[in-house]
Amino acid sequence: MAQADIALIGLAVMGQNLILNMNDHGFVVCAFNRTVSKVDDFLANEAKGTKVVGARSLEEMVSKLKKPRRVILLVKAGQAVDDFIEKLRRCRTLKAKGILFVGSGVSGGEEGARYGPSLMPGGDKEAWPHIKTIFQGIAAKVGTGEPCCDWVGDEGAGHFVKMVHNGIEYGDMQLICEAYHLMKDVLDMGHDEMAKAFEEWNKTELDSFLIEITANILKFQDSDGKHLLPKIRDSAGQKGTGKWTAISALEYGVPVTLIGEAVFARCLSSLKDERVQASQKLKGPQKIQFEGDKKSFLEDIQKALYASKIISYAQGFMLLRQAATEFGWTLNYGGIALMWRGGCIIRSVFLGKIKDAFDRNPNLQNLLLDDFFKSAVENCQDSWRRTVSTGVRAGIPMPCFTTALSFYDGYRHETLPANLIQAQRDYFGAHTYELLANPGRFVHTNWTGHGGSVSSSSYNA
Amino acid sequence: MAQADIALIGLAVMGQNLILNMNDHGFVVCAFNRTVSKVDDFLANEAKGTKVVGARSLEEMVSKLKKPRRVILLVKAGQAVDDFIEKLRRCRTLKAKGILFVGSGVSGGEEGARYGPSLMPGGDKEAWPHIKTIFQGIAAKVGTGEPCCDWVGDEGAGHFVKMVHNGIEYGDMQLICEAYHLMKDVLDMGHDEMAKAFEEWNKTELDSFLIEITANILKFQDSDGKHLLPKIRDSAGQKGTGKWTAISALEYGVPVTLIGEAVFARCLSSLKDERVQASQKLKGPQKIQFEGDKKSFLEDIQKALYASKIISYAQGFMLLRQAATEFGWTLNYGGIALMWRGGCIIRSVFLGKIKDAFDRNPNLQNLLLDDFFKSAVENCQDSWRRTVSTGVRAGIPMPCFTTALSFYDGYRHETLPANLIQAQRDYFGAHTYELLANPGRFVHTNWTGHGGSVSSSSYNA
Ligand SMILES: NC(=O)c1ccc[n+]([C@@H]2O[C@H](COP(=O)([O-])OP(=O)(O)OC[C@H]3O[C@@H](n4cnc5c(N)ncnc54)[C@H](OP(=O)(O)O)[C@@H]3O)[C@@H](O)[C@H]2O)c1
Ligand SMILES: NC(=O)c1ccc[n+]([C@@H]2O[C@H](COP(=O)([O-])OP(=O)(O)OC[C@H]3O[C@@H](n4cnc5c(N)ncnc54)[C@H](OP(=O)(O)O)[C@@H]3O)[C@@H](O)[C@H]2O)c1
Repeated sequence: MAQADIALIGLAVMGQNLILNMNDHGFVVCAFNRTVSKVDDFLANEAKGTKVVGARSLEEMVSKLKKPRRVILLVKAGQAVDDFIEKLRRCRTLKAKGILFVGSGVSGGEEGARYGPSLMPGGDKEAWPHIKTIFQGIAAKVGTGEPCCDWVGDEGAGHFVKMVHNGIEYGDMQLICEAYHLMKDVLDMGHDEMAKAFEEWNKTELDSFLIEITANILKFQDSDGKHLLPKIRDSAGQKGTGKWTAISALEYGVPVTLIGEAVFARCLSSLKDERVQASQKLKGPQKIQFEGDKKSFLEDIQKALYASKIISYAQGFMLLRQAATEFGWTLNYGGIALMWRGGCIIRSVFLGKIKDAFDRNPNLQNLLLDDFFKSAVENCQDSWRRTVSTGVRAGIPMPCFTTALSFYDGYRHETLPANLIQAQRDYFGAHTYELLANPGRFVHTNWTGHGGSVSSSSYNA
Repeated sequence: MAQADIALIGLAVMGQNLILNMNDHGFVVCAFNRTVSKVDDFLANEAKGTKVVGARSLEEMVSKLKKPRRVILLVKAGQAVDDFIEKLRRCRTLKAKGILFVGSGVSGGEEGARYGPSLMPGGDKEAWPHIKTIFQGIAAKVGTGEPCCDWVGDEGAGHFVKMVHNGIEYGDMQLICEAYHLMKDVLDMGHDEMAKAFEEWNKTELDSFLIEITANILKFQDSDGKHLLPKIRDSAGQKGTGKWTAISALEYGVPVTLIGEAVFARCLSSLKDERVQASQKLKGPQKIQFEGDKKSFLEDIQKALYASKIISYAQGFMLLRQAATEFGWTLNYGGIALMWRGGCIIRSVFLGKIKDAFDRNPNLQNLLLDDFFKSAVENCQDSWRRTVSTGVRAGIPMPCFTTALSFYDGYRHETLPANLIQAQRDYFGAHTYELLANPGRFVHTNWTGHGGSVSSSSYNA
């Protein structure tokens, strides 16, 4: 009776595909769904001829599971997960045993679920030995068969890492949009020409899933033989994970500016009607014909994209490091890069380089301080600055290219003008400041020669 | 016995000054403080010879108040406020009556409290007639005696407006830092020369408290006769109100990019040790001598600052408008500009122009669509673009100048490249998209010719 290695609850697109994936890897899976009819449908259709078994109740599901019983909940995020944990807890046959809970990020959508997702499990580490073979067995593989799945860390670490992944995805997508905008409006390139450029880029250090699909999208023709892309409404949707990443960055005080700008860029894009109105009123710079060498400016754009991408990932890992400090997690940064290396939307050759950097130095404080990335950015920087200054003069919005460059220039400045902020805060609010010569000691200056001499301890703007 | 017009609880720097301010305006104030000894100290010193009366218990305070009893709580923000409301509620003599609660933003620090703060009251509107004379009496005045205080709106509207004020303050301060950085490092200007420039700017449309104090700070000399500013540690502090504004912007989906960047710039500045390390490793562009006309580039910087400031306020008012929609508030935008026009850190001539814009059109959707601001930005734009492209080539971080420009260029684009984001989301996640020709109808394309045809309803990246 108890023949199943694992059970999966939630037979929507992700669940069905993950079951078939586990089946491919030799595991016997017991399938269950709240709406029980879907179990029968699944067994009679997609799962026909496989070793998948069905359950028509939670009790039946539990009775069919080998011990220790492993259950994957793959239901609609939010309340549904809580409801089901409650039920499982209450379930009599499980009552005597503790449940080891693992929260796992899962990425790669339908295709990933079916043929190899990126899995980011975190939570009760005691559970890991019991699920490791299955999780790593079905995960995406890269290189010489390394699975894109490893133990992430305690508590919500798996979900946090998945959240940052999604934020980075927002950034990568916006960077590609800015390159596309420059190609289209500064270089006047056609869609097939742009597709060709992205295909070429996909053979370089930019080799990644998103660059690859961008090439495919650019050349895709509608049934009328015209390109589909320019017919699509430029109003980007979002459901929140990028936003959460940016909010976390603000909460923990980490300058993850690129994801922030990418989220805001989507917000601005969605104000379509207001933009249409504004476009009739607000003037841009005078349109000037591009006079430089087209081929070399295209290369500049490519390097601007690459450098900006390095900044974005450096910022993302800064956030992970800060979260680890806040929550007392021990995170395996190289492992995280490997988990994202395949199976998910941001998969790329680039993530292999990040893995290498953390292999070289597991305590690397910032990606930019690794020799490979340091040289990569430095090689790109002239192109990057040319791209930005050309785009700025042409009136092309480049929120992510520019914020990445500002970050780079800020990060490598021993001295920033924030001394003036401290002086202002002390001037108007007696908030005190430190002297360079005496850090750690806060002093107040009576800047005007009048006013009180009491410094403010609690009120800070 | 009941001779006091109003009571004030909390005799710290703000409370004492506000009491003296009310006294100056002919109101009899009853002073109370948790640590009762401070009441006696205050009466014996700062309040000596005034009409201020003291109370040594809440009961005594209540008994000394004329009806309807008006009480200002000016204690440490957070738990203290809640504790005191609880106490007041329990207070027997008040029990029979409802308490009309008003939450008021107050800005201007010690000086403001003493001689005229900006007050932003919101909450129970029934309370307004009872406190209006006092609030408007003691508030800062501008122009022909217009008080920088008016009713803001329901519930937490007063605090929300004050929060946005603080966020804008972060932006204004960072913009000044970027101008200072460019003057110092591109134009090699000395401190007195920079002070002079800010003094000149303070006679233009940039006339404001922050520009004024920047000039004073730049020329301020330490006891050794050297300028104090460059000795101050460039690590900016913050206590959260800017961060909250940026988080609200993300929550409500409003692209308030400039405040976001200003907050992140403070975060980056505070990573001083990491920056010192990075500065030894990461190369910038080759140092080039500035070859243009110094005077005209200084003017470019001034215009870049002005244009960026317009963007920042446009974004701030976008956030207020969205909050009003979310919470069902009716906000008086011109009134808000007037409240900030004097008495607070961001006070400026500029805010009078914003008031004028809303007077011309109370339903103005965006500041940039007002003719005055439209022309102002357009007049600045060549300078703004020159400043940014020069700074970018010189390696000066300008997160706020550049994000403002990206916003302007994005906002005035009828078409943004977000169609590519929608295509990508549909490609990898079947998230569907709209056609320009058919907004409101969401369609899915099978981009690869394989894979499922089910579109995702609930999962959105
Ligand atoms: N789709 C993607 O590309 C993708 C990618 C990565 C991660 N994910 C994550 O994977 C999970 C599954 O996603 P999905 O797109 O396959 O499906 P989904 O549409 O998010 O969820 C549908 C499934 O959840 C079940 N469900 C919903 N509310 C429930 C409740 N209150 N109690 C019990 N079951 C409930 C449904 O059962 P009924 O049939 O009874 O309604 C159905 O099996 C989600 O957490 C999602 O965030 C999805
Ligand atoms: N300082 C500024 O520049 C400025 C500017 C704008 C707005 N504000 C706001 O104005 C308010 C007052 O600021 P402040 O700087 O004058 O003073 P503060 O340092 O923020 O607060 C000190 C006052 O709060 C009282 N207090 C603290 N905890 C209390 C508790 N649990 N129960 C009762 N009373 C308590 C203290 O009473 P004891 O004497 O008994 O300790 C003292 O009277 C704050 O909300 C602040 O955010 C300040």
